Amino acid sequence: MTHTVAILGASGYTGAELVRLIATHPSLSIAALSADRKAGMEMAEVFPHLRHLDLPKLVKIEEIDFAGIDMVFCALPHATSQAVIKELPDHVKIVDLSADFRLRDPAEYEKWYGKPHSAPELQKQAVYGLTEFYRDDIRNARLVAGTGCNAATGQFALRPLIGAGVIDIDDIIVDLKAGASGAGRSLKEHLLFSEMFENVKGYSLGGTHRHLGEFDQEFSVIAGRPVNIQFTPHLIPATRGILVTCYLKGDPEAVHQTLASAYEEEVFVEVLPLGQAPAMKDIRGSNFVHIGVAGDRLSGRATVIAVLDNLTKGSSGQAIQNANLMLGLPETEGLMLAPLYP
Amino acid sequence: MTHTVAILGASGYTGAELVRLIATHPSLSIAALSADRKAGMEMAEVFPHLRHLDLPKLVKIEEIDFAGIDMVFCALPHATSQAVIKELPDHVKIVDLSADFRLRDPAEYEKWYGKPHSAPELQKQAVYGLTEFYRDDIRNARLVAGTGCNAATGQFALRPLIGAGVIDIDDIIVDLKAGASGAGRSLKEHLLFSEMFENVKGYSLGGTHRHLGEFDQEFSVIAGRPVNIQFTPHLIPATRGILVTCYLKGDPEAVHQTLASAYEEEVFVEVLPLGQAPAMKDIRGSNFVHIGVAGDRLSGRATVIAVLDNLTKGSSGQAIQNANLMLGLPETEGLMLAPLYP
Amino acid sequence: MTHTVAILGASGYTGAELVRLIATHPSLSIAALSADRKAGMEMAEVFPHLRHLDLPKLVKIEEIDFAGIDMVFCALPHATSQAVIKELPDHVKIVDLSADFRLRDPAEYEKWYGKPHSAPELQKQAVYGLTEFYRDDIRNARLVAGTGCNAATGQFALRPLIGAGVIDIDDIIVDLKAGASGAGRSLKEHLLFSEMFENVKGYSLGGTHRHLGEFDQEFSVIAGRPVNIQFTPHLIPATRGILVTCYLKGDPEAVHQTLASAYEEEVFVEVLPLGQAPAMKDIRGSNFVHIGVAGDRLSGRATVIAVLDNLTKGSSGQAIQNANLMLGLPETEGLMLAPLYP
Amino acid sequence: MTHTVAILGASGYTGAELVRLIATHPSLSIAALSADRKAGMEMAEVFPHLRHLDLPKLVKIEEIDFAGIDMVFCALPHATSQAVIKELPDHVKIVDLSADFRLRDPAEYEKWYGKPHSAPELQKQAVYGLTEFYRDDIRNARLVAGTGCNAATGQFALRPLIGAGVIDIDDIIVDLKAGASGAGRSLKEHLLFSEMFENVKGYSLGGTHRHLGEFDQEFSVIAGRPVNIQFTPHLIPATRGILVTCYLKGDPEAVHQTLASAYEEEVFVEVLPLGQAPAMKDIRGSNFVHIGVAGDRLSGRATVIAVLDNLTKGSSGQAIQNANLMLGLPETEGLMLAPLYP
Repeated sequence: MTHTVAILGASGYTGAELVRLIATHPSLSIAALSADRKAGMEMAEVFPHLRHLDLPKLVKIEEIDFAGIDMVFCALPHATSQAVIKELPDHVKIVDLSADFRLRDPAEYEKWYGKPHSAPELQKQAVYGLTEFYRDDIRNARLVAGTGCNAATGQFALRPLIGAGVIDIDDIIVDLKAGASGAGRSLKEHLLFSEMFENVKGYSLGGTHRHLGEFDQEFSVIAGRPVNIQFTPHLIPATRGILVTCYLKGDPEAVHQTLASAYEEEVFVEVLPLGQAPAMKDIRGSNFVHIGVAGDRLSGRATVIAVLDNLTKGSSGQAIQNANLMLGLPETEGLMLAPLYP
Repeated sequence: MTHTVAILGASGYTGAELVRLIATHPSLSIAALSADRKAGMEMAEVFPHLRHLDLPKLVKIEEIDFAGIDMVFCALPHATSQAVIKELPDHVKIVDLSADFRLRDPAEYEKWYGKPHSAPELQKQAVYGLTEFYRDDIRNARLVAGTGCNAATGQFALRPLIGAGVIDIDDIIVDLKAGASGAGRSLKEHLLFSEMFENVKGYSLGGTHRHLGEFDQEFSVIAGRPVNIQFTPHLIPATRGILVTCYLKGDPEAVHQTLASAYEEEVFVEVLPLGQAPAMKDIRGSNFVHIGVAGDRLSGRATVIAVLDNLTKGSSGQAIQNANLMLGLPETEGLMLAPLYP
Repeated sequence: MTHTVAILGASGYTGAELVRLIATHPSLSIAALSADRKAGMEMAEVFPHLRHLDLPKLVKIEEIDFAGIDMVFCALPHATSQAVIKELPDHVKIVDLSADFRLRDPAEYEKWYGKPHSAPELQKQAVYGLTEFYRDDIRNARLVAGTGCNAATGQFALRPLIGAGVIDIDDIIVDLKAGASGAGRSLKEHLLFSEMFENVKGYSLGGTHRHLGEFDQEFSVIAGRPVNIQFTPHLIPATRGILVTCYLKGDPEAVHQTLASAYEEEVFVEVLPLGQAPAMKDIRGSNFVHIGVAGDRLSGRATVIAVLDNLTKGSSGQAIQNANLMLGLPETEGLMLAPLYP
Repeated sequence: MTHTVAILGASGYTGAELVRLIATHPSLSIAALSADRKAGMEMAEVFPHLRHLDLPKLVKIEEIDFAGIDMVFCALPHATSQAVIKELPDHVKIVDLSADFRLRDPAEYEKWYGKPHSAPELQKQAVYGLTEFYRDDIRNARLVAGTGCNAATGQFALRPLIGAGVIDIDDIIVDLKAGASGAGRSLKEHLLFSEMFENVKGYSLGGTHRHLGEFDQEFSVIAGRPVNIQFTPHLIPATRGILVTCYLKGDPEAVHQTLASAYEEEVFVEVLPLGQAPAMKDIRGSNFVHIGVAGDRLSGRATVIAVLDNLTKGSSGQAIQNANLMLGLPETEGLMLAPLYP
């Protein structure tokens, strides 16, 4: 049985990635694509790599007849998302790829995003979309909030460790390296080729990155008390991919064992043998996460490195994984594409 | 029904690309993988991006029991290929990705590759593997010779034009830009990151590139008389992808019309509206070819630009397209993966 | 003796490149820097790589006291340049890096740039700034028009050949590959890292690129009759550098000999031995031009490949070379920096 | 007065970088270049970007007449260096760019490099070449040991802090990102363009990187007791440049103040205002170091980020800075080249 989907905000990279994945998904069919400023254009004009597909024209959201839509992927900018989702008819299920429904506490939302939440009642229904950890809730949810791509990467490295008590949760340091596509197709000077090429730069220094709101929320729930990590993201000259290097106080073998056990049954998460380093390119274009653990010459120190593709497992792949659960489909359907290498 | 395949030379990029594509192919199953120097290793050690797959260990060719194999993909180096294929049992079908069986005339082979052909009798059976133009022969072939990746790109741009007589076939100029992966995983100084980065360089200047043997053979057959193009390849700082810019004497509208008609029914070949330029990235990781045509301020000049991914449509994707035909499967099976963008 | 200079439009890449070069120039001293929207900022805020230099603050042009200025480098956008230069006091010498004074014929200017020239009387005084060919005129000029960076590259390859009559001037094809920085620091979607990475694309197809106006003007003067080349530029994933591949009808040895003789005494132009290919990276960050010539298996065909750095020899380095002449300094002063490799 | 220099091992990247810098150095002149396997070749064949220079041919070391040489730059592989330097005549001064003389304690050398030191008596004379901290000793030295490029970057960030006691020296974490050129021009699979492009990977995990020997030695001397940092290097898709992110326990304002004071008089070290992040590209091709400091939402945490170009300030630029001192020249002579941007 085929389920019809609408993608709102289809002219951005996460929108294009949803179309890419749905193109070979056996049970999903694209019925509508919206893009505000590009309404009226063919998708092939905005993304010529999709020209072989038979896709609906881009329209404004208000032109979409949601009566025939089962699932909405909402890839709109933050804040816009809330306003749009509030108006969607009850029968549609929704995976939101924005930040709008990630933080359960409206005060936290306001703190990190600088304005009050305009749909706090919807926020209550929303399930945090880190599939491997919220699977049962997602199955029954109407609205799932896709995670931040950086937040997802760090959580795959750290959640089981915080839960198992094998690391000092008051001294967690996460150094993140991310490619450009996480920032979307927006016209910003620092995202120009001439600026990024042959460059690396830290940004959102000092604990100011918004994804810390997600880390705080999730890790504190797991630990049963506040957990606040130290986190520095860096922009690197690559398009897709995130690599986190986590510096932890804990026994490396216990850390490795905990992660290996936690993900033993998980199709999309691979824990490498102790001492091996994952490479960012090894998961490019796929829904996989690779995690490596190493000890140190200093006893009691463990380094955990995790990689994922921000556009796939970090957003659009995750979204489809969640949609599969919400629609009663096999969780991995359409998502077993192998990484593109080299 | 599942067909079993063996990949000989699985530790190179075309081998890895075959595995990537077969991973989501519904009717092919990998029964054996060979790699001479890396025999005994797991594929995941050689290509960690494939670690989620359940693959046979790498072995030496002589360890493979071909009794249970339906199809052999031979991704061995030139010259080695001939020697190995000669010894394969009669029941297996073969797609050879090397240059060994591309040139029908043994004298031409010797001219371009510098030594006599060691399996000239097999050469007679071999079908040239440019699927869109040899479809019927391929269906009935036991041995198909995969084309050169550069040769494939140029032929998609030029074959219909030479056949239709809409261009001056004595003045065809092909300027080619290719990424690094076409040269494989070999350790050569000019393929180092530090050398290629921020660099562009022409190579095989003066009509010395071996793929000219294929161009000559194919174009002369079409024209019914010798056709010798002028061809300069350039190495560019990219991994996957080839773009050819063909400078032609002919009417641009006739050129465009000829190409549009020729490929109208072809699933994998997209001819853009007249005046539009294809981008190399628009077909990355896919089996698609995009072709654009432009006129010029100088009347009677046409520029044809074509792009494909050297590892997919230029070698491993083409190989599977041919294998599909040889095994009686739908030609596009397993090959409809959308390009990875960005 | 030190000459004082002002750089108008210092917040773009050519402005930054002028500052880089003047930083180690023994006879030039920067007295003023202008940037309209960024007036009031320190140069180190706009270009942190220049923070070690003691530079004047960015100001609006009208704030500059030109009384103490000997030389103005005008790196303003096209059209703005004309308006500003008209108002400069008579005692200042000017090197203009925009397109405003490159075309001698106002009708040609209007044809290629879409509006009438607003300073046609100044245009008459302007000398075309390709130093190696206009050296004497430049020495005595008040206003020199920097060349287009693409136009400069093609002219280094072709001028001596057109002059010597060793090629068919009615069949000149120039295939150009250029990095991103030639397009400046402007916010355009196709210049984003995520778009350019792993991409190659032709642009201004069909003889529509504005630098054709320069080619036409210069080549026609040399030949004494109209010469119109065929020209296709491509954007490649690199920051600095231009490589042109010129497909010519002519004897390769005569072509090589002509170029070798023409540039024998030129410090900045290196002609490689016949058959060798220049690499774009070999001149990065320098004022050098490398030129290679190859024959072909087709007799009577010659391929000329030339490379230069668009920001150095293609604009700011050329500007300083011209300024040196205009100020009576040694032509190479401050310009002998070796290329940065790798 | 001009001093004559010989570069041993001139066919690698540090050799080429020495030539680039000496090309515009007013007091140094290259009298001999050695390269073992490439002896007999012109430097322009090995590095065509240097073809405009009038350089001696590459020879074997034994062919060099050291009688006329004042200064030897030894850019040979580790271990080879010791053997060669032992045999040099007494009158030559030497800057060694290998690891051979960096570790004062022969036992430490053997521990990190896996074999006994073969010139322990010379080791006693050698001065550690981090100019800003060993200036006086370097002035009087015959043999200076160039530092590891990674070790240099980390030391610029940390030395003043360890000396001032403003951070917890038992909990120093250094996350390093480095481009490919630090690994030289060696043919290794992981250095291929196709492998590095779009990739990031940690290496030498667990405290096994040899540059830790330098960190341990230097920091322990400053602290007066053992200091052992935690250090994870990552290879990133760039050619030149190193960025370290140091996670420290200490007051950010004290940290910033300590660094700002320490480097106040240093020409080549720029400390940015508190809270600003340095970018790797901002020092490319130059001898400058940029350092930034940020606080954190967690009190008592400071992050220090430092960048330098591994081939310039991290090896060849540093070598010339030291040679200047050893020869009685101004320390900055020939080294004030501005960074290449973009």
